[in-house]
Amino acid sequence: MTLGELARIAGGKLTGDPNLSVQGVASLEEAGPGEITFLTHPKYAASLAKTRAIAAVVPLGTRAAPCPLIECPNPTLAFAKITALLVPTPRPEPGIHASAVLESGVQVGRGAAVSAFCHVGRGTVLGEGVALFPHVTIGPDCAVGEGSTLYPGVVLRERTRVGKRVILHAGVVLGSDGFGFVNDGGRAHKIPQVGRVVVEDDVEIGANSTVDRAALGVTLIGRGSKLDNLVHIGHNCRIGANCLFAAQVGLSGSVTVGDGVVMGGQVGVADHLVIGGGARIGGQAGVTKDVPAGAAVSGYPARPHRDALKLVASLEKLPELRKEVEALKKKIAIQQPKPRKKKARKK
Amino acid sequence: MTLGELARIAGGKLTGDPNLSVQGVASLEEAGPGEITFLTHPKYAASLAKTRAIAAVVPLGTRAAPCPLIECPNPTLAFAKITALLVPTPRPEPGIHASAVLESGVQVGRGAAVSAFCHVGRGTVLGEGVALFPHVTIGPDCAVGEGSTLYPGVVLRERTRVGKRVILHAGVVLGSDGFGFVNDGGRAHKIPQVGRVVVEDDVEIGANSTVDRAALGVTLIGRGSKLDNLVHIGHNCRIGANCLFAAQVGLSGSVTVGDGVVMGGQVGVADHLVIGGGARIGGQAGVTKDVPAGAAVSGYPARPHRDALKLVASLEKLPELRKEVEALKKKIAIQQPKPRKKKARKK
Amino acid sequence: MTLGELARIAGGKLTGDPNLSVQGVASLEEAGPGEITFLTHPKYAASLAKTRAIAAVVPLGTRAAPCPLIECPNPTLAFAKITALLVPTPRPEPGIHASAVLESGVQVGRGAAVSAFCHVGRGTVLGEGVALFPHVTIGPDCAVGEGSTLYPGVVLRERTRVGKRVILHAGVVLGSDGFGFVNDGGRAHKIPQVGRVVVEDDVEIGANSTVDRAALGVTLIGRGSKLDNLVHIGHNCRIGANCLFAAQVGLSGSVTVGDGVVMGGQVGVADHLVIGGGARIGGQAGVTKDVPAGAAVSGYPARPHRDALKLVASLEKLPELRKEVEALKKKIAIQQPKPRKKKARKK
Repeated sequence: MTLGELARIAGGKLTGDPNLSVQGVASLEEAGPGEITFLTHPKYAASLAKTRAIAAVVPLGTRAAPCPLIECPNPTLAFAKITALLVPTPRPEPGIHASAVLESGVQVGRGAAVSAFCHVGRGTVLGEGVALFPHVTIGPDCAVGEGSTLYPGVVLRERTRVGKRVILHAGVVLGSDGFGFVNDGGRAHKIPQVGRVVVEDDVEIGANSTVDRAALGVTLIGRGSKLDNLVHIGHNCRIGANCLFAAQVGLSGSVTVGDGVVMGGQVGVADHLVIGGGARIGGQAGVTKDVPAGAAVSGYPARPHRDALKLVASLEKLPELRKEVEALKKKIAIQQPKPRKKKARKK
Repeated sequence: MTLGELARIAGGKLTGDPNLSVQGVASLEEAGPGEITFLTHPKYAASLAKTRAIAAVVPLGTRAAPCPLIECPNPTLAFAKITALLVPTPRPEPGIHASAVLESGVQVGRGAAVSAFCHVGRGTVLGEGVALFPHVTIGPDCAVGEGSTLYPGVVLRERTRVGKRVILHAGVVLGSDGFGFVNDGGRAHKIPQVGRVVVEDDVEIGANSTVDRAALGVTLIGRGSKLDNLVHIGHNCRIGANCLFAAQVGLSGSVTVGDGVVMGGQVGVADHLVIGGGARIGGQAGVTKDVPAGAAVSGYPARPHRDALKLVASLEKLPELRKEVEALKKKIAIQQPKPRKKKARKK
Repeated sequence: MTLGELARIAGGKLTGDPNLSVQGVASLEEAGPGEITFLTHPKYAASLAKTRAIAAVVPLGTRAAPCPLIECPNPTLAFAKITALLVPTPRPEPGIHASAVLESGVQVGRGAAVSAFCHVGRGTVLGEGVALFPHVTIGPDCAVGEGSTLYPGVVLRERTRVGKRVILHAGVVLGSDGFGFVNDGGRAHKIPQVGRVVVEDDVEIGANSTVDRAALGVTLIGRGSKLDNLVHIGHNCRIGANCLFAAQVGLSGSVTVGDGVVMGGQVGVADHLVIGGGARIGGQAGVTKDVPAGAAVSGYPARPHRDALKLVASLEKLPELRKEVEALKKKIAIQQPKPRKKKARKK
């Protein structure tokens, strides 16, 4: 593609020859001839000065570079769009591989790919352009919306519904049984998990993450939410739209999460809690009670982030504080008349 | 089935027409005509009053509902039994799929299902009614007891033994090598892991969980224990009977766990520890020393839960405590004669 | 093999008949006739005294055993070498299984095994003696070095490079997309992840672990490093040589780790941090800032391990400290003249 075309796609202002041909993308340091690069922050300006890239996508107002520039209000977004065009993600060939097994009543949309060793259960519907990489297993009565991508080894249990343009990375399991047991004389009696999982449009779920089906009803991942690798979502959770959960987050059963919630890595949330929309949960936090909308919490047990910071600061000084109290005790003892001295030691 | 039959199975007392026909199960809010629902706690009585269910399983003494009632001492248990009858879990067809690969000497019990793309190693024995979903890989010299279910993508390495009525959810790996290395001049030399994994009857293991084989001897998951998703059990662990481990629990090597131990999500246990029977470990706890039988511990490092609660309460007041000590220091300084004032500043 | 041969391989000094035939290995307690065992620490000497093993590998200077001894400076290392010889790990038969799917241009080295249901993308190169267990999926343009082993269900996405003698346990995913999004008016716009994963020689990665491909450039696992099960490595991380990460460790994006770093289980590391060579991170630590080379840190937020221990000791005494401060406040109040008493209460 030409630099002019890329500038138009990026919605940026080009300084340089619009007819230059661009073949690939790379970082400031690694870019070679024919590759475009990008600068997200002025602090990397020194690397920009030395880049061998054919052009760079940069923040507005950037000057002094050894190559043509595309100035953009949001260079990361611009670069994402450019990269998607220049480096297409490999996808399986459309069509149904000879080794795939499709049970009765399966519907496969136009342009969909069902790769080698895929197994699709009866009555399942695959939308237009759905891409199943090898070794995907889909149970009966599922639906996968148009343009969704299921990487190798993904498993959807029966009656799972996946929206449009969803990306499920390798090893994702949707619809496994929730962890539900009832005590029957000291033994755990299984509560059948007969609900299902619904994943809305534009969701992305990371490798080897698991989302359990509801005991009754639905476990829901809302539109546009993104889950990283090795995340666990318990049965009957309801995740809102446009959430971001980093790797190894774990939600117990029946947690309700509002829209736009951000969770750091390894966060744990106890069952039946409500996390309000826009809340931000710090990495490794252990959430043991509801979090109000818009709140930022961290630590274990999770508390408002400001309090958590103060607490950490106080903690750092705790050994010192103990010494101070010891010193005070001694002084008081010296100042005190004898009878009180005795009392002071009684504790 | 009829309401009368369900009442008998539930062991409950029916108030209403025993000949009513029940087709399905649903929650209080979602139940429609023909569906039975259940009430586990009086606090949901308002939802019961509005349910459109054909009948409800309720605690003893529940009155005033818009539908027939089955009163039970344990409505959750009753509902579990009713659900298992009304909503059977989909299972693969008995028989060996044409695409499955069975090496020499494999024995397949009556009524067992070996689905598409399964691979079973030489000499492995599958009991009566075993269900292998697609893409299950079982190594040589394994045994799977009657009635067990292995969901898609489960992997059993060589010589693993799985008991009867065991459920292994999608992506479970049993018998992967333990994490054992010996330092050889700054490099980690692998210690061959030549033991195995034994999973006793009625165990259930959640999606993408992993249980490592022993270095020598056995890694054991005791009868009736239930592990949630993404749990890690290190080599040579011995888990007792009827334990419950929530998602993302991790046990280092050679941990011994008694019967009936309950662990919350994301608990970590250091190697070679002993967790006594009936112990309860709070979510995200970091267990760094043995836990006595029957104890409840939480926090990092894990301590008795009561102490942990006190500690958290004290922590909340730590910033305040620092202020108090500062105030005391000032007062003491004022009260003190000059020479001691100097000493006070020395700290 | 004979005891004499094993003593030579172990580099140890044999006391006993070098012609005895050894068939297997087992622990001190479980060893039976024909099996060799080992003693790693004098504290297990009582078990050694009762063993029925045909011989034992023991530390230098060990005496008084019921069987011949091989004395070694490092008995664990010696035993690892002996075990590798006596108990070979099962490997798939060399050759390409009839059910495997190899796209165009795949190169398979001499003695390599491509098992049932493997799928290898176009242009991928498998070195000599590579062993692919069933259900391995390798994308296009990958390379796997000689002698490497990929257990069932391993997934390598496009352009992943794996070195020699690497072991990837069941369910490992290399090259899944990094978790990269840019905010576009409240919605997360995907940043294409067009880099790759490079795993150097002699690396071992545990079951169901995931390593994300770089956004641009490379996510690197250095030579000889060992990762346990369910570990997550974010995009653009660079892990040095000979590191050891225990199970469920999670590294956010762009973390740089030096050589020989050891992490306990469930450690989390925030993005863009630098962990110096030889650092040791305690289990469950939450690392929120750079760690100097050679440092030992633990806790949340991670701090020098000595400080963390002091802090825990101080914490244990915090409830008591509060009582002491209360007592001091009362005494001061008694000692104070009236006007100051009032001030004391003001806080």
